[in-house]
Amino acid sequence: MIRINLDYLKEQPQFDTYQERIKKIHQGMNDLSLPGNDFLGWATLPLNLDHNEIEQIKKTAQEIRSRVDILVVVGIGGSYLGARAVIEALNGLRPLAKKPEIIFLGQTFSSTYTAQVLSYLQGKKFAINVISKSGTTTETSIAFRLVRNLLISQVGKDAARNLIVATTDKNKGVLRNLSLKEGYQMFVLPENIGGRYSVFTPVGLLPIAVAGINIDDLLAGALNGYQRYNNADLESAANRYAITRNALYQANKKVELFVTYEPQLHELQEWFKQLFGESEGKEHQGIFPTAATFSTDLHSLGQFIQEGSPLLFETILNIKQPVLNLSIPHDDDNLDELNYLAGKTLNEVNEKAMMGTLEAHSHTGRVNNIILEIPDLTTKTLGELLYFFMYACAVSSYLLEVNPFDQPGVEVYKKNMFKLLGKK
Amino acid sequence: MIRINLDYLKEQPQFDTYQERIKKIHQGMNDLSLPGNDFLGWATLPLNLDHNEIEQIKKTAQEIRSRVDILVVVGIGGSYLGARAVIEALNGLRPLAKKPEIIFLGQTFSSTYTAQVLSYLQGKKFAINVISKSGTTTETSIAFRLVRNLLISQVGKDAARNLIVATTDKNKGVLRNLSLKEGYQMFVLPENIGGRYSVFTPVGLLPIAVAGINIDDLLAGALNGYQRYNNADLESAANRYAITRNALYQANKKVELFVTYEPQLHELQEWFKQLFGESEGKEHQGIFPTAATFSTDLHSLGQFIQEGSPLLFETILNIKQPVLNLSIPHDDDNLDELNYLAGKTLNEVNEKAMMGTLEAHSHTGRVNNIILEIPDLTTKTLGELLYFFMYACAVSSYLLEVNPFDQPGVEVYKKNMFKLLGKK
Repeated sequence: MIRINLDYLKEQPQFDTYQERIKKIHQGMNDLSLPGNDFLGWATLPLNLDHNEIEQIKKTAQEIRSRVDILVVVGIGGSYLGARAVIEALNGLRPLAKKPEIIFLGQTFSSTYTAQVLSYLQGKKFAINVISKSGTTTETSIAFRLVRNLLISQVGKDAARNLIVATTDKNKGVLRNLSLKEGYQMFVLPENIGGRYSVFTPVGLLPIAVAGINIDDLLAGALNGYQRYNNADLESAANRYAITRNALYQANKKVELFVTYEPQLHELQEWFKQLFGESEGKEHQGIFPTAATFSTDLHSLGQFIQEGSPLLFETILNIKQPVLNLSIPHDDDNLDELNYLAGKTLNEVNEKAMMGTLEAHSHTGRVNNIILEIPDLTTKTLGELLYFFMYACAVSSYLLEVNPFDQPGVEVYKKNMFKLLGKK
Repeated sequence: MIRINLDYLKEQPQFDTYQERIKKIHQGMNDLSLPGNDFLGWATLPLNLDHNEIEQIKKTAQEIRSRVDILVVVGIGGSYLGARAVIEALNGLRPLAKKPEIIFLGQTFSSTYTAQVLSYLQGKKFAINVISKSGTTTETSIAFRLVRNLLISQVGKDAARNLIVATTDKNKGVLRNLSLKEGYQMFVLPENIGGRYSVFTPVGLLPIAVAGINIDDLLAGALNGYQRYNNADLESAANRYAITRNALYQANKKVELFVTYEPQLHELQEWFKQLFGESEGKEHQGIFPTAATFSTDLHSLGQFIQEGSPLLFETILNIKQPVLNLSIPHDDDNLDELNYLAGKTLNEVNEKAMMGTLEAHSHTGRVNNIILEIPDLTTKTLGELLYFFMYACAVSSYLLEVNPFDQPGVEVYKKNMFKLLGKK
């Protein structure tokens, strides 16, 4: 269960004044009468799981795990951010069980990055999961061509065929046709779910399962999310979060700093930034989503937050129980003068840093703070949290009266680039 | 040489109106008559190098390289961001020469992160470089106690002594006293240089040298920076950058998005964020520094930049010559429809993506763009770039009439935390 704590706001939002709008939004999402209603598949997905498909994902993941040491996920934006967020949050930055390693490619045109990954893969056993709705996303298709060539050069065309899985559109597109012709195994990217809402589809689930994470637990968490947050209740944490964001936005706080105290949540922050930035940022509206990891970044952005331009508000994700914990040992010499902490856990210190910072930023610095509290960082809780953010983001976008599910602005650079590259 | 291109601004700053202020700032930095003048050591450092110390750093680095597989750098904020930025920028995210690996610790209270790093180090050959002016920074001293205990448990107290190097204050402090007593080798963190301006001191140089990077080249680049940017010339790229930032800030653009097209510059972006955020963010002023890696984040923040709230401007770092390059191969079947790019390099595509994006954001999206152009990503050019940013940041802060070299706001959370932890 996600709890929202609004004690560190300078002023409480007038929740009651939002009741009608929240009701209408919830109603509209249910009867599919709002803009973007073609892309609401994610909202009820936890209820409508295709269990055959999930079993097939688990089976494929198990095969990949048994056959290779590395899975290369080739995709960009919504095609990889969800999986990367979940894998890094649950396995950490230096996972103890190393195999298979998950490497992300096809999210950049950087020649240096791509060349270094290809060098690293040389002589190693790897499989590929290429993820693209159309197959024409340039970053992804270039990387796929390069890494597929490497795989074929290492194992031959026939063996390569059995080490490539495509996640793509059900009915059409370049990647679908290529995969059919080459005989690659395919999973479907549902038509009514956009990339940034796709973490519970095969887009997210296959890489997550290959990383050794229990996807049934993740989906059970998503179902909890559906049951707890898909409603018009003003007491729901998701609605309260959406309303509070809106009230802060109306009060000219247009930058949200999403804060965690765990470095392994960096990729969750990246997922969050895409989710909110792409959903809300249109028609010259929206909160600019950015992120920081404390206490690390208190020694970097802390000064600005405390005393700089008063642009931003903070949303703190507080995890009550860490994945691993450590005690601070006693030292007879105590030359570092740390014995006053001996016997305490590192997590107790992290919590006190958080309390001290909340006090510093909200009371001394006059910055608004929203706290989202989760009990732990288990797979199930993370599933619930992802659903929570997706639902809150949709409500938040509808409160701005924008369509949460399109991204017309992303096409502009592509068109210009294709022209410069001479694409017909 | 760094070139600044202002063709993608909606309006040119009135540079002439800044001439007097730029002169006064340059004069004041030279005769030490401005606030923060005690911390201007970095500005003339490239002229005043201590060559004995640099030789000692190289010798120590060589010893560490020959004896261990991993260097653990224990520090937070300015004590590690510069080194990490340089090492990752030059060696890349998956360096081909793997040894020694550089691991950063002591920048977080996260028990999971710390426990995973300690597990990873178990049974491995490693050395420690602990970096702290006072030795009382809590994140760093807890991590140092833990990792030192691990090292002692693995190699014994005597051998450990020779695998620990401390970078700390010359005359006082807990870490200095501890190191004297234990007999650790020491390097000095100069008194007149603050953490975020310390990359060319032993703070940055030792880890950088251990990573196999030529620090003479880096310092030669810094000297180029001194010669090219430490002046009152309105044509200088550093002054033009500082003035343009100020003009945009006055026009209510209070968020700067520092953009690169190379993922390996992520840590340079983090260094940049600390440098500008901590230097400018005071007295309710300053531009909020944030960053993105394109084209990756065009599929995440791109929509917001193109069509969202008009808060921000972009500063693009354009590298003409990439570290590595790759050609896109021809494919007989062309099922992915990419043959129109065959024979082109990946870097050509990256450049076209940049041009297309500049056009999209500045013309269609009406976002101001500053382009900083560097010829390549060699060690020498990077040294110049770091100096460029430090000088521009000082000028930019003085234009806001704030002291670029203090950080009074960082202390607030620490005081609260110490109270909660019961520290006397």
